[in-house]
Amino acid sequence: MTDFFKNIPQIKYEGENSTNEFAFRHYDPEEVILGKRMEDHLRFAVAYWHSFAWPGGDPFGGQTFDRPWFGDSMALAKLKADVAFEMFDILGVPFYAFHDADARPEGATFAESLRNLEEIVDYLGEKQASHKAKLLWGTANMFSHKRWMSGAATNPDPEVYAYAAATVKSCLDATHKLGGANYVLWGGREGYETLLNTDLKAERAHAGRFLQSVVEYKYKIGFKGAILIEPKPQEPSKHQYDYDVATVYGFLKDFGLEKEVQVNIEQGHAILAGHSFEHEIATAAALGIFGSIDMNRNDYQSGWDTDQFPNNHAEKAVAFYEILRAGGYTTGGTNFDAKVRRQSLDPEDLILAHVGGMDTCARALKAAAYLLEDDTLEAARRARYAGWEREGAKAMLTQPLEVIAEAVVKNNINPQPRSGRQERLENLWNHYI
Amino acid sequence: MTDFFKNIPQIKYEGENSTNEFAFRHYDPEEVILGKRMEDHLRFAVAYWHSFAWPGGDPFGGQTFDRPWFGDSMALAKLKADVAFEMFDILGVPFYAFHDADARPEGATFAESLRNLEEIVDYLGEKQASHKAKLLWGTANMFSHKRWMSGAATNPDPEVYAYAAATVKSCLDATHKLGGANYVLWGGREGYETLLNTDLKAERAHAGRFLQSVVEYKYKIGFKGAILIEPKPQEPSKHQYDYDVATVYGFLKDFGLEKEVQVNIEQGHAILAGHSFEHEIATAAALGIFGSIDMNRNDYQSGWDTDQFPNNHAEKAVAFYEILRAGGYTTGGTNFDAKVRRQSLDPEDLILAHVGGMDTCARALKAAAYLLEDDTLEAARRARYAGWEREGAKAMLTQPLEVIAEAVVKNNINPQPRSGRQERLENLWNHYI
Amino acid sequence: MTDFFKNIPQIKYEGENSTNEFAFRHYDPEEVILGKRMEDHLRFAVAYWHSFAWPGGDPFGGQTFDRPWFGDSMALAKLKADVAFEMFDILGVPFYAFHDADARPEGATFAESLRNLEEIVDYLGEKQASHKAKLLWGTANMFSHKRWMSGAATNPDPEVYAYAAATVKSCLDATHKLGGANYVLWGGREGYETLLNTDLKAERAHAGRFLQSVVEYKYKIGFKGAILIEPKPQEPSKHQYDYDVATVYGFLKDFGLEKEVQVNIEQGHAILAGHSFEHEIATAAALGIFGSIDMNRNDYQSGWDTDQFPNNHAEKAVAFYEILRAGGYTTGGTNFDAKVRRQSLDPEDLILAHVGGMDTCARALKAAAYLLEDDTLEAARRARYAGWEREGAKAMLTQPLEVIAEAVVKNNINPQPRSGRQERLENLWNHYI
Amino acid sequence: MTDFFKNIPQIKYEGENSTNEFAFRHYDPEEVILGKRMEDHLRFAVAYWHSFAWPGGDPFGGQTFDRPWFGDSMALAKLKADVAFEMFDILGVPFYAFHDADARPEGATFAESLRNLEEIVDYLGEKQASHKAKLLWGTANMFSHKRWMSGAATNPDPEVYAYAAATVKSCLDATHKLGGANYVLWGGREGYETLLNTDLKAERAHAGRFLQSVVEYKYKIGFKGAILIEPKPQEPSKHQYDYDVATVYGFLKDFGLEKEVQVNIEQGHAILAGHSFEHEIATAAALGIFGSIDMNRNDYQSGWDTDQFPNNHAEKAVAFYEILRAGGYTTGGTNFDAKVRRQSLDPEDLILAHVGGMDTCARALKAAAYLLEDDTLEAARRARYAGWEREGAKAMLTQPLEVIAEAVVKNNINPQPRSGRQERLENLWNHYI
Ligand SMILES: [Co+2]
Ligand SMILES: [Co+2]
Ligand SMILES: [Co+2]
Ligand SMILES: [Co+2]
Ligand SMILES: [Co+2]
Ligand SMILES: [Co+2]
Ligand SMILES: [Co+2]
Ligand SMILES: [Co+2]
Repeated sequence: MTDFFKNIPQIKYEGENSTNEFAFRHYDPEEVILGKRMEDHLRFAVAYWHSFAWPGGDPFGGQTFDRPWFGDSMALAKLKADVAFEMFDILGVPFYAFHDADARPEGATFAESLRNLEEIVDYLGEKQASHKAKLLWGTANMFSHKRWMSGAATNPDPEVYAYAAATVKSCLDATHKLGGANYVLWGGREGYETLLNTDLKAERAHAGRFLQSVVEYKYKIGFKGAILIEPKPQEPSKHQYDYDVATVYGFLKDFGLEKEVQVNIEQGHAILAGHSFEHEIATAAALGIFGSIDMNRNDYQSGWDTDQFPNNHAEKAVAFYEILRAGGYTTGGTNFDAKVRRQSLDPEDLILAHVGGMDTCARALKAAAYLLEDDTLEAARRARYAGWEREGAKAMLTQPLEVIAEAVVKNNINPQPRSGRQERLENLWNHYI
Repeated sequence: MTDFFKNIPQIKYEGENSTNEFAFRHYDPEEVILGKRMEDHLRFAVAYWHSFAWPGGDPFGGQTFDRPWFGDSMALAKLKADVAFEMFDILGVPFYAFHDADARPEGATFAESLRNLEEIVDYLGEKQASHKAKLLWGTANMFSHKRWMSGAATNPDPEVYAYAAATVKSCLDATHKLGGANYVLWGGREGYETLLNTDLKAERAHAGRFLQSVVEYKYKIGFKGAILIEPKPQEPSKHQYDYDVATVYGFLKDFGLEKEVQVNIEQGHAILAGHSFEHEIATAAALGIFGSIDMNRNDYQSGWDTDQFPNNHAEKAVAFYEILRAGGYTTGGTNFDAKVRRQSLDPEDLILAHVGGMDTCARALKAAAYLLEDDTLEAARRARYAGWEREGAKAMLTQPLEVIAEAVVKNNINPQPRSGRQERLENLWNHYI
Repeated sequence: MTDFFKNIPQIKYEGENSTNEFAFRHYDPEEVILGKRMEDHLRFAVAYWHSFAWPGGDPFGGQTFDRPWFGDSMALAKLKADVAFEMFDILGVPFYAFHDADARPEGATFAESLRNLEEIVDYLGEKQASHKAKLLWGTANMFSHKRWMSGAATNPDPEVYAYAAATVKSCLDATHKLGGANYVLWGGREGYETLLNTDLKAERAHAGRFLQSVVEYKYKIGFKGAILIEPKPQEPSKHQYDYDVATVYGFLKDFGLEKEVQVNIEQGHAILAGHSFEHEIATAAALGIFGSIDMNRNDYQSGWDTDQFPNNHAEKAVAFYEILRAGGYTTGGTNFDAKVRRQSLDPEDLILAHVGGMDTCARALKAAAYLLEDDTLEAARRARYAGWEREGAKAMLTQPLEVIAEAVVKNNINPQPRSGRQERLENLWNHYI
Repeated sequence: MTDFFKNIPQIKYEGENSTNEFAFRHYDPEEVILGKRMEDHLRFAVAYWHSFAWPGGDPFGGQTFDRPWFGDSMALAKLKADVAFEMFDILGVPFYAFHDADARPEGATFAESLRNLEEIVDYLGEKQASHKAKLLWGTANMFSHKRWMSGAATNPDPEVYAYAAATVKSCLDATHKLGGANYVLWGGREGYETLLNTDLKAERAHAGRFLQSVVEYKYKIGFKGAILIEPKPQEPSKHQYDYDVATVYGFLKDFGLEKEVQVNIEQGHAILAGHSFEHEIATAAALGIFGSIDMNRNDYQSGWDTDQFPNNHAEKAVAFYEILRAGGYTTGGTNFDAKVRRQSLDPEDLILAHVGGMDTCARALKAAAYLLEDDTLEAARRARYAGWEREGAKAMLTQPLEVIAEAVVKNNINPQPRSGRQERLENLWNHYI
């Protein structure tokens, strides 16, 4: 046991009226909702990078956090893992997620980086064996080191493509070894800073081929998890190829991957792309590519990715409603790709930020589940489209334009608008929240 | 001759040093650029709706324009057409574009609206026969009347689907009769105000089928023009299904239409979707669906569609560069989907706004053509990707991950970043502008 | 009694568990909170314009609402007033607010418009006498008619300045006659479309003088209410002079009005200006100019003013917390400057949108009051600044730089950062919501 | 001479048709415009921080630049200064600007940091003596070190206030010693991350007092330069107190400093605040507080501060027009608070980015000067307001409301709108660009 979280107790469910800051008020892993334990619905994961690797810098300021594991040795990497699993235990989360670069020191060569990764993967494997938390997903950090500055699979330099291939292979191997439920690709540098120096078509072709080869490798090694793309419109790139769910879908169709790859949707990224979180989830569900979520909000005022912990359950309830309508997660989960503010210096801040986020999600899930079970909203939705069940309606979907047009004239069709009842449906939501 | 534009002369090219406000300084239709007349490159079109049908209102204020043709009779509709063709003559534009609702009064029934449309189409046909301007594209206004408030092809009410089918048939017939070069669909209400009352999946399916039936009808009547979708992310809808070029592409792929339908890209819509105009053009070109453009800018400060005339040739030059790289227009053109500000009350404002827009585009086209001909920028681009021409590079695109990974380790590949030279390329542009 | 709201009962408080859509679940006017009745805390007002004068149009579509009182006669204006007071009764709201143009038909001359206004004001006065609802504020619509297209008090044409003066006089007279608690000025066209044709300095001077004359007139007629400016950054103007609270403050200081004029803060306008609602309220309170609020939200995705009813009590609670910290309203109130969506066609939609908004505010107020009473958040805030209570700290605020600098060197001052605890404070909020 | 810029020649003016990348095409320091040398109009300054201290990191990636002077010793700080002055010589710029933290290594104590600063200031003084470049302004970096994470003068901890006082004193001393023309304060952390832990009113009072003490100290030491505040709405803070020009003005009025302090306006910050650059300049001029500018653009697509070099002269011309209308700079200048993109690795990129920016500004200045000299735009502006010169118009500005109202009725005033001619004025601009 390290002493980083000393004096912080394990967080337990104490119910809504608890006045204990170090307790769950809403998240009771054992509570059964719609026939499933809350823990199995929510499948919470802690992000290794934000909680253990981020030093607290921003574009105008440097490190604010003092963490005993900061540094570049394997010994410190193991200390970091020790503290991480202590936090997972305190929170009782079933999952975590990590990039290679979060967990191991960079080596002087690819081979050395790989050895470091393999050593830390073994260590994480031992940790998993003796603790509750398992791996929700692994991923490769192909955006921080300067070699990636112009892209990974879409880099103008084929050596970088090669390095990316080797990197993803190593991270997929690591994820497989650790029994990860998914493997995620976020292409933070797969895009451009300026069109003036970019061959859009070639880069897109390289990205498509790269993703095909990742899927092929998954089958080769027998990895059973899902391959997920995390869309984001921009930042750090001016434009990122995986802009949003609909863009990713068109890309997958083009490369024959729409049955092989799903999406990991982050709320903050949805907002940056001009969508609501629930829109992106509903779109992915409609297109058959919903996978998992990164649960972290942006500040609505800023135009960048603030990766804050969720704290408005009313807002999240609509998102969980769409997840439940989509049938819930299969391999996916609720990953807190969230960081405490850089002024939140204390170990308590790290723990309590997660506690607040977990309680927010639990409240949201419960509200969503009650509303779905009660069926009032779905009944209203069905009623709005009920005309399509009337005789002759669906037949139009196979008729040519001129046949329909003739009927319009003959029957003097003159459709009358009916209320969309938006405010009443919004009020309905507020009964459940 | 009406007397609306009395005293306004025909606009002629007088060269850069002209001090005549009523002259082109840059647009010389006969000037040959890259082997083609400037008129044939730019293929300018005037939008009937903004210049002749819009009364000058905004969400906080009513009509500001006094136009002698405002009103609902066929006689006034013909007066409007007379004035419109007088403006086309004054400007010397080769094209115009219109919606059914711009050109004919709404009838009490669909049949009456149709008769009105047919009568005005005949009148426009006579106009075309005796004037230069031809039809770049026709389209259906399926967003202004209250019947469309919840969508056209995606309406929850199948009667509206039927009415939309009849409407598009009538507009495609009209476009065909007038020899239109394209037919455009902009789905301003094909989206939603709130997910709470929306069946996203069903609406998307209806939209897809509807578009298939439009394409089928085009072949049936022998219309040779292109079918174009105009993407827009939102406004008036909170979310519009044709969000941007990449979204439309995924949609077309899903319904087997990616070879049949292209896009009409509007600068303002690109910006609202978080893209640059040139990005959307380059993306459409890379995906093989570039069709035409709506040349009108937003104000960068506002978050809505201001439909202003272009007036910054430096900015437009990058867009025309991408159009030229894509091979230029085939059936498409440069449509001014732009309106004078509601305080610009005078006939002179209408004319001079177009003159300024046409000169801006002409300057932009010339700068783009010189730079493309000179090849400096393209040479820099090719140099940046030259590594992919080296031995073994392209082979990687067929190799499995593990083979590439092995080579990385064996050859100790350690890619070194090279400058992206963005500022130098930006300076290069400024030589040409 | 008209039959517009027939079959809709008066809305009563039935408590949280009521399943009656036509009941308050949270708003109990009689409940005492922090020593004051909830009705007296919230001081709800209905906006005449959105509920009774708006036809449902948007920039891409026309009227969707069928209201029996639409039209331009005095008889219809009185029918409108009848229905309005029926709605005020159904909701039990203590206040309403109106513009001249909402309530009376425009005349052919100013004199005729004035007579119409006087007649309808008499009628409204009778209504007030026999119903509960009183006037929270009156205001002049100086943005819809085309005479205002280039501004009212800031118009380049002095005749418009004159017309504005006459208009505000008439509206202040009307407000005084009806016993209004406040008079509001929103300068929707007091700004510009383009700097190119604008004399910023002269327009600002005219606006300042105009406001002075309004304050002088208030004293002359003995109006006891407050004069309020409603800030907004843009829309319909590209730039509006009353951009936000801080801008209005500088303007008031310049014209010696900072003790005479306060602000009416609208959530949607705060967001358009890049602020949170609570920021604007807290800023106004800190500057001593907090007056009243317009309670209506924007959609965070759109960049324009959507004037939606509030439906997220968690979000509003922070705003009410700042209002309570500022001591609550004196003459001000909570005005729903909100409209049902244009697809919400039914009389029920109008009523239930207000019911939802009132319940949302009531929940928010209660949460805010509990947290304030409990003092946990304020105690944390005081603790954060406690250093300023230590010896010598406040003295620095009168010391010259060099004296402080000397002490820093001499005492080797080396301040150590302390956690800002943002997430813990956010969790704290969630206990109360 | 270091060898960092070896092989890069001094940049000279070669005229518009030069094909030499390392030449000015538009910036001829000796060209006389409106009676003043171009160099004296533009007063270009290079920013020490972006060109010499920034390592190329962004929120998702680390250092990309290899610079021989990176490190923490005094020797490296002097090497940095050597290279900086070599760049100033190559560009021929008359000015530079710097923060303490750009120029000297941080010490273990304030005293040590101060000694380092004093030593490097002496070194810079020697450099200035033997080179052309002088100091446009000095400033204190009170945002990067973690001690400033919660603010400098507005920090909850009075020790940080003290440290800030000592820091600004030292930087003002340094600026005075180096003969700086101005001293700038940018309060990047003078704001908040969350209102929940913030005492807005107290922090504003501390900021006001702090600024007063800076002004007092300026007089004490006899510093003749201007004190400038650089507004910014947010980033890194969620809200910054110096939001925009109008906000700063209200703040200055409150603390009696509106005659003592002016603004340094950055284009990027103007845009983030929802304004155009020219708006902020025109506002400052109208309020009598225009000082200087930071000439660097944002990307219109991103919502953060990208600090890019200007490259659109059409856009900048409007800004320079407002500067010329305001009488040009007195102590101020055109500071490139701009950085090359992190992929622009080469010394050539640093030089050519500045060359492009300088040429862009020179073209913009020339266009603005011609248009101003020609008076066409100003004549149009005067004509628009000419009504205020008619008899009786200005008298209204001293009349009470009721007198004006009486005249409106008596004379049946009915103002008729006149065209604002926006597009014609935009066309006019394009003649000059
Ligand atoms: Co994420
Ligand atoms: Co993110
Ligand atoms: Co368009
Ligand atoms: Co548009
Ligand atoms: Co309002
Ligand atoms: Co509003
Ligand atoms: Co700056
Ligand atoms: Co900046």
